Amino acid sequence: MVEQWSDRWSRRGRMAASVTRPSRTPVEGLVSFNYGDPDADSLPLNEMVEAAEYLAENRRVDALGYQDPVRGDELNEALAEKLRRDQEIDATASEILVTTGAAGGLSLLCDMLIDPGDVVLADGPAWMGATNMFRLSGAETINVELDDDGLDPALVRTKLDELESQGTRPKFLYTIPTFQNPAGVETSLERRKGLAQLADERGLLMVEDDAYFDLRFSGEKKPTIYSLSRGGNVLFFGTLSKTIAAGLRLGYMVGPEDVVQTFVRGRVDSLRNSYSAALADWYLRSGKLQTHMEELREIYAKKCHHMLAALEREMPEGCSWTKPNGGFFCWVTLPEGCNAAEMLPQCVEAGVQYIPGTGFYSDGRGERNLRLSFSALNEDQIDTGIARLAAQTRAAMSVAT
Amino acid sequence: MVEQWSDRWSRRGRMAASVTRPSRTPVEGLVSFNYGDPDADSLPLNEMVEAAEYLAENRRVDALGYQDPVRGDELNEALAEKLRRDQEIDATASEILVTTGAAGGLSLLCDMLIDPGDVVLADGPAWMGATNMFRLSGAETINVELDDDGLDPALVRTKLDELESQGTRPKFLYTIPTFQNPAGVETSLERRKGLAQLADERGLLMVEDDAYFDLRFSGEKKPTIYSLSRGGNVLFFGTLSKTIAAGLRLGYMVGPEDVVQTFVRGRVDSLRNSYSAALADWYLRSGKLQTHMEELREIYAKKCHHMLAALEREMPEGCSWTKPNGGFFCWVTLPEGCNAAEMLPQCVEAGVQYIPGTGFYSDGRGERNLRLSFSALNEDQIDTGIARLAAQTRAAMSVAT
Repeated sequence: MVEQWSDRWSRRGRMAASVTRPSRTPVEGLVSFNYGDPDADSLPLNEMVEAAEYLAENRRVDALGYQDPVRGDELNEALAEKLRRDQEIDATASEILVTTGAAGGLSLLCDMLIDPGDVVLADGPAWMGATNMFRLSGAETINVELDDDGLDPALVRTKLDELESQGTRPKFLYTIPTFQNPAGVETSLERRKGLAQLADERGLLMVEDDAYFDLRFSGEKKPTIYSLSRGGNVLFFGTLSKTIAAGLRLGYMVGPEDVVQTFVRGRVDSLRNSYSAALADWYLRSGKLQTHMEELREIYAKKCHHMLAALEREMPEGCSWTKPNGGFFCWVTLPEGCNAAEMLPQCVEAGVQYIPGTGFYSDGRGERNLRLSFSALNEDQIDTGIARLAAQTRAAMSVAT
Repeated sequence: MVEQWSDRWSRRGRMAASVTRPSRTPVEGLVSFNYGDPDADSLPLNEMVEAAEYLAENRRVDALGYQDPVRGDELNEALAEKLRRDQEIDATASEILVTTGAAGGLSLLCDMLIDPGDVVLADGPAWMGATNMFRLSGAETINVELDDDGLDPALVRTKLDELESQGTRPKFLYTIPTFQNPAGVETSLERRKGLAQLADERGLLMVEDDAYFDLRFSGEKKPTIYSLSRGGNVLFFGTLSKTIAAGLRLGYMVGPEDVVQTFVRGRVDSLRNSYSAALADWYLRSGKLQTHMEELREIYAKKCHHMLAALEREMPEGCSWTKPNGGFFCWVTLPEGCNAAEMLPQCVEAGVQYIPGTGFYSDGRGERNLRLSFSALNEDQIDTGIARLAAQTRAAMSVAT
């Protein structure tokens, strides 16, 4: 009997079978709070035509050719300007690597830093997209608990010491400090300073994913951990998926030039999508991004407030939830005795869907939690969905008691 | 002294420093035969405007949102139709994975199949982009020599037996059967049948990269190894980079549905570029691709014949080169005693650049070879470049004798 090639997957290939990837195809009649998809009506289809016309009129053949992912000009330059203006990040165009979505950048980070058996620290709860990548790369994720003020550097320090006493040193700490996915909270200024200091003091790489920074609709703007650190120990990841369009697959990483250059050489498929990049470059330079971000903040503020009002109105006593100042997500805690994963099949039956909290921890925590995303839904859907969720929660509570 | 994170790269990260990635920025006065970049003047900037208008008029918001890389419709369906018509490949839309360029697909293949220490077989010479990926993934590449009829299954069989007697089984065989990069040759029908049979008989995965299939300007069309095999042992890789635009970063892999689905789960950043995909979908469905391919065949035929004539006219006796029926590349053999890598600095000084043959082997072969790409240059550049190359070859020959 000949051994078949298909019995000889790599370590990662064998793992791939165990990764869940729920379909993104909408189901008739089901209100899904699952995905952080942008508001569909506001997607800039017409502006993309304008951008394409600009590229054609100016015979920008480079936009349809192969391009290096790091350049001193074009989108890298436009992003450097945007980061200086909005995020107060001082970076040159050559310190910016344009990636295939932020996910492409984070995957590359895993390739460059993780060997099987490594340990990484992450928010608790943490975005499952990132922790899935860490797992596929062979790393174990240890969650450090968040509270309403985000990630506490004191808890990180304790965890580092504890691990060090066991001879383990995490490869990096992954955190979303602003409108965290899934928790919806933001890390306070004081704590950001503490995290920056900790990174510098311990030589710990801080991976700052700031996908939602530009979507603040209340509260005071806070500086990034990147801009608070002495430099070299924070890699900053951003995306245009939430503010222009996810379909363009454009993210970026900001870090020291030599780190950026090593990342570029780490994968042969790291060439940028030149056409997407040129469309986005036009969008940034024409000032459209600034105007569009203003519109988006209003759109998401309305959706978020509508959902918070619905939760307040519908949910039974004993439930609580975070009150986001921006972003796409809200984190719900059910009463003692409830289990969000166990409740899910009945919820789907009743026409509402969410992601259970346990998916955002690597250690079984989050049983009583669930993530709700309000970004893609309209007000009617939100009302219907929350009413269904509340009814199912009541049903579960009556069984629990 | 605190250990810094930057001293703790992964195996792959440490390797990244040793990968060379020459800049794609053109140098004034230098004729570069280095890159297989498409002809710039024919890039469809205006058609992209038409496609963008179509998407805007039809409110195709899905084209700016997140999309799964495998779908039963849209670009997958258009590609299935194209493959049936042009390549005689019979595949359903769900057997097609849209990737970030063919390079994205091949990288994913490495992730799914290669563990450090593995061995893979490849053409000799082989495309360095692919062998660089194999190396970054930790595999050793063993080259099986090509001749004017392409890759010989008998040589592959001998190599397999030899390796097996040492207890080694290659993870796959990587080959470009049509207008091979760098050699410019094509594998004969008889040999394609032999390779398909070998794959089925040995359970050996055949990775068929057919980037240049659509750019034939002479000779008879040959079936793919994929369509000649019983099925399941060949993965077919294609790209729209050469026939629409490299800047869209669209490639595709064709294989059994379960393999395709495992690949999708192997990386979290495998979501497709929805906007690029929708633009390309329009391009295929409108019939533009067919017309454009006809134009491109004429353009590249002219360039190739112009270069072959220049080689014939200029190069000293004792040099030989392949006579491509399509594609972008021609492979030159210099006379005994010449060394293409050693000659390169003087060539660059004299204003001409090529890639030395040793870069396409993992074992030091190819000393007397060099790759010339004619795809991106105009006739004047080709004339000037070949005259310079001929003069430098003469100079090297006079030193060698």
